[in-house]
Amino acid sequence: MTTKTLKDLFIHSLSDIYSAEKQMTKSLPKMARAATSSDLKSAFENHLEETNGQIQRIDQIVEATGIKLKRIKCVAMEGLVEEGQEQIDEIEKGPVLDTALIAAAQKVEHYEIAAYGSLIALAKQLDELPAAKLLSETLKEEKNTDEKLSLLAEEKVAAEALGK
Amino acid sequence: MTTKTLKDLFIHSLSDIYSAEKQMTKSLPKMARAATSSDLKSAFENHLEETNGQIQRIDQIVEATGIKLKRIKCVAMEGLVEEGQEQIDEIEKGPVLDTALIAAAQKVEHYEIAAYGSLIALAKQLDELPAAKLLSETLKEEKNTDEKLSLLAEEKVAAEALGK
Repeated sequence: MTTKTLKDLFIHSLSDIYSAEKQMTKSLPKMARAATSSDLKSAFENHLEETNGQIQRIDQIVEATGIKLKRIKCVAMEGLVEEGQEQIDEIEKGPVLDTALIAAAQKVEHYEIAAYGSLIALAKQLDELPAAKLLSETLKEEKNTDEKLSLLAEEKVAAEALGK
Repeated sequence: MTTKTLKDLFIHSLSDIYSAEKQMTKSLPKMARAATSSDLKSAFENHLEETNGQIQRIDQIVEATGIKLKRIKCVAMEGLVEEGQEQIDEIEKGPVLDTALIAAAQKVEHYEIAAYGSLIALAKQLDELPAAKLLSETLKEEKNTDEKLSLLAEEKVAAEALGK
């Protein structure tokens, strides 16, 4: 029982999302390579850059607060990445795979939206307001990425997948 | 390569969320037992009932459209459930565990929000409008559950976890 206080839980949760983001820096280039639509490729490439910035924000929090991250692997993100990889393996490159990749990426975004939402609530309860501010910037980016992907799913990629 | 068309992708995604919901019917009672706050316990119990209704909606879609669900296991939900179970194993019963359970449940809700969002977009593109309507009802429930959990995290449970 190493998690006893809300501070412990904050450190555990921050370590978990750190692992999740690191996994995404390996997964996003694969998703970009698997995408056919140039808009979708760009969306993944841009989000890779953002993800690197989000990791830097966690590093900043670690530095400012003096907390020590745990070396854990986020098993939930592992499952999400595996699901995306299965799609890449099972579906021929083209508009249907693009639609599947968008869905897989939105699941990842929503995982992160939930994770950062909880982290921000914890940071505020612990009066770690600069950390809450940095995490809120990341949350905003994740929500924007999710919306961008929704638009892509509804518009361009979908039309191509239906052969329009 | 069994997924070639948007219809195949719809069937695959519906089979995936069906597995995810089934996993939740086993996980939610454990989460309810692990919760200390009576409000949180009720939230999990109510959501278990809702989840059973959501499974019935998928059955209705299967019946109305004549599609055949695949027997697959949603690996992403498996990871999410494992993450929640780890919290139950690692944290002593009480307000800190309650906070962790809320965070784990919100990740599940967000997984489902993303999954149903993609399914609704697919159903609309395939002109399966009655299916889209049923799935939208479920999406609304998932969003409501997520909001209810956010409120619990910010208010009662958090105050208890801080010993207020």
